Amino acid sequence: MSEPRPPHSFGMIGLGTMGRNLLLNLADHHFAVAGYDKDPDKVRLLGEEGAGKPVQGFSEIKEFIASLSTPRAVMLLVPAGKIVDSVIEELKPLLTKGDLIIDGGNSHFTDTERRDKALETDGLHFFGMGVSGGEEGARRGPSMMPGGDKDAYRVVQPMFEAIAAKVGGEACVTYIGPGAAGHFVKMVHNGIEYGLMQLIAETYGLLKTGLGLDNAAIGKVFTDWNAGRLQSFLIDITKDIFAFKAPDNGHELLDDIKDEARSKGTGKWTSQVAFDLETPVPTIDTAVSLRDLSKYKALRGQLADRYGPAAGLLPVQREEFLSQLEQAFYFNMVITYAQGMNLLQRASKDFGYELNLADIAKIWRGGCIIRSTFLSEIYQAYQQTPDLAHLLLDAQVQKLVQEAVPGSRAVVAAAVQAGIAVPAYAASLSYFDSFRTARLPSNLIQAQRDYFGAHTYELIGKEGVFHTQWVPEHEPAENKQDVEVGEEQKGKEEVTPNG
Amino acid sequence: MSEPRPPHSFGMIGLGTMGRNLLLNLADHHFAVAGYDKDPDKVRLLGEEGAGKPVQGFSEIKEFIASLSTPRAVMLLVPAGKIVDSVIEELKPLLTKGDLIIDGGNSHFTDTERRDKALETDGLHFFGMGVSGGEEGARRGPSMMPGGDKDAYRVVQPMFEAIAAKVGGEACVTYIGPGAAGHFVKMVHNGIEYGLMQLIAETYGLLKTGLGLDNAAIGKVFTDWNAGRLQSFLIDITKDIFAFKAPDNGHELLDDIKDEARSKGTGKWTSQVAFDLETPVPTIDTAVSLRDLSKYKALRGQLADRYGPAAGLLPVQREEFLSQLEQAFYFNMVITYAQGMNLLQRASKDFGYELNLADIAKIWRGGCIIRSTFLSEIYQAYQQTPDLAHLLLDAQVQKLVQEAVPGSRAVVAAAVQAGIAVPAYAASLSYFDSFRTARLPSNLIQAQRDYFGAHTYELIGKEGVFHTQWVPEHEPAENKQDVEVGEEQKGKEEVTPNG
Repeated sequence: MSEPRPPHSFGMIGLGTMGRNLLLNLADHHFAVAGYDKDPDKVRLLGEEGAGKPVQGFSEIKEFIASLSTPRAVMLLVPAGKIVDSVIEELKPLLTKGDLIIDGGNSHFTDTERRDKALETDGLHFFGMGVSGGEEGARRGPSMMPGGDKDAYRVVQPMFEAIAAKVGGEACVTYIGPGAAGHFVKMVHNGIEYGLMQLIAETYGLLKTGLGLDNAAIGKVFTDWNAGRLQSFLIDITKDIFAFKAPDNGHELLDDIKDEARSKGTGKWTSQVAFDLETPVPTIDTAVSLRDLSKYKALRGQLADRYGPAAGLLPVQREEFLSQLEQAFYFNMVITYAQGMNLLQRASKDFGYELNLADIAKIWRGGCIIRSTFLSEIYQAYQQTPDLAHLLLDAQVQKLVQEAVPGSRAVVAAAVQAGIAVPAYAASLSYFDSFRTARLPSNLIQAQRDYFGAHTYELIGKEGVFHTQWVPEHEPAENKQDVEVGEEQKGKEEVTPNG
Repeated sequence: MSEPRPPHSFGMIGLGTMGRNLLLNLADHHFAVAGYDKDPDKVRLLGEEGAGKPVQGFSEIKEFIASLSTPRAVMLLVPAGKIVDSVIEELKPLLTKGDLIIDGGNSHFTDTERRDKALETDGLHFFGMGVSGGEEGARRGPSMMPGGDKDAYRVVQPMFEAIAAKVGGEACVTYIGPGAAGHFVKMVHNGIEYGLMQLIAETYGLLKTGLGLDNAAIGKVFTDWNAGRLQSFLIDITKDIFAFKAPDNGHELLDDIKDEARSKGTGKWTSQVAFDLETPVPTIDTAVSLRDLSKYKALRGQLADRYGPAAGLLPVQREEFLSQLEQAFYFNMVITYAQGMNLLQRASKDFGYELNLADIAKIWRGGCIIRSTFLSEIYQAYQQTPDLAHLLLDAQVQKLVQEAVPGSRAVVAAAVQAGIAVPAYAASLSYFDSFRTARLPSNLIQAQRDYFGAHTYELIGKEGVFHTQWVPEHEPAENKQDVEVGEEQKGKEEVTPNG
């Protein structure tokens, strides 16, 4: 290995590409850093890639820990789950009070909460930190979302700010909040990512099936979009993907890739916790759901045989439709971010994360997968009104959305008529139309629940909880009076199975 | 209380309306039964309502247990959660090996699994049993979904078959499967219930806002529907609700009910576990999501002010639209049931529930909240082909769906253009159009994931897992070759955070 060096100010456990790249990034910024991995090949690779830089690899954990300056900062980039717990157990006897462990993987926020509490009793600091940007981001400037013990942030702040992506000179990293706040925010980041990726995929479907465009023409649409207000990392890489030809056979590689979308759980977690927090994120739900649906490939083939032929060309004017589609995508992008921000706001309230939504939008502007020009609008909206109840209430966003709604309606209506699936486009529009409805038909649901399960209802402009005997028992429907429900009745309601 | 009677063949803990009504139902069928509640008022009520019937109430649990014939069958109708555990702990020392505890509440299936395993070590049998039909069903004939130890079913089978709802002479109860199968099936039943209720609410919204109908006219639509192929309990009670006038002020009560839909968790659980099982149920997800959205009433008011005015009348011919709407509802109803059945099938496989989908459809035809004429079609489909991969593959269902699709497209397109929210209608159509697509645009998602996270992809017609360097590092997009990923690379993929 390389020669011993002065104490290292940062240690990394797990020298996969992400861990290695983050260390090299730190070393580029003149921080002396150490890496540890059980796999000697990975340690060797770090040595090779880090030649000439202040970075040292270890295959022996005690030597690795001993090489760190105190208070130690040790980051884990290992697979989420039990391995994180076992590495923490291995680390604990080697660390001293005041040291900091950083879990930089995509751990579920409830695991992070548990670990944070457990390590606090051991006198150790703990960070759950979201890192976004993939391998390239880790090497050249990621967006980082550290959450946990605020006091411990001072130790790592200069290093993180040095290596993070920069937008307008500002680092894409900030202290997110206590406990699992960092991992929660990263999870929602990924939920938004799922939503945007599904929207891009549906756009591809519309352009290919609905307009009959070839890959070059589709790539041009995304290239044009990326030059305008839709500029974003995901659109940017999409244009690259459409331009890519496999060197061995000259095929446009995209055409040969199987249409089964995999996932690793963070999108699913976002939807699941959104249901727990009673905060709708239907575009994200739809994106997760469609990845699942895509995996039923054999069944899709059977259903296509039964219910085909597939949809054909849309009866639209190409240029007009492309303009509407740009509006529709813009609208949907706004709605997707808005759902994510709304979920963060609710989680901040319910979990005590004290999130600063402006700061979060700010650090997402660079380095991460969902970075986009539009994030500056979100940043400004929350900077101006930190307690904004919903992104759609911001005056500037309102203006942009109102201009984009007609295109969105046109696209969804055309796709629905033609039978081209646009589940996320449709879900975003439904979310918007539902949320802008002061009086929903949900009163009927309350009436039904009271009818069959005595679940009670509330009245407009009258305090209390009420139950009605909607029809006389065993008699035809006739009017019967509603009665206010007393405490006893309310208690009783709790033991009535829900239908 | 009443005089001592010969040993009781069934005991109920929790004498709320549901518990009381089930006991009275058993007594009507000449089973001698006992009830226990801490609350003497409820015990007294059982005595009053059960006067002259073989039913006895107890306020002392030991006396209650002593009055039961062995092996004992003791059912709990208490609030789901910790209370179930504490009642079980209280019961255990009073029971003997071979006795059966039945949890008849809406417990989460993972709790039921845990309890089933724990009680097995104590030599006690355990059933998680879904009971549907509300108070009226409990009294006159519910649909029951008992799951757990099959041997123990023989003890209660004659009683359950006697009190269950009957359809064509057949009882709406059957042994569902091992472990938590009964509670799982009841949970999915409720998920379907959420979906159907949301669809009915959206229908109400379309008729009211889109066609400008008053309650009487809307009630007539549901009355007509209930006389045809849409006949179902939920449509039936809906027509009653539209006919109901509050006796104190003559108002149509529905108009005065607040449009915030409450829920008790079973719909949410269905969506959450469907994500875990990677089985899409987007109509149910949407229904749960919309209940959540409805509760943001103040925010909806603000957004209505910003993005109003609300949608107006649809530019449609009333009679033609009503005919399309009936098609659309039919289509959506089929899709909702199909999603639920698909989830049951996946759970049966993944959890070893050995579910008989034909039997489940059969016992849902009567007694329960989602009973409908259409359930006979589902019953026939699975009876004919027990391993049917999806309800939409059944030839008869296919015929019905194909006829109903055009109406569904017309309704969703019109609503989307007019700005009337139809989230569940749209979600069902999206599900259908996605599932009947042999080649989804999800290949693009795989390409994106590989681009930014090296998550790899699969190719059509070529075994293996591949990764491509889509653009040369720090250079403009140029073609670069794809490489097959070895084991090491695949392992590495696991430690790469997902974006």
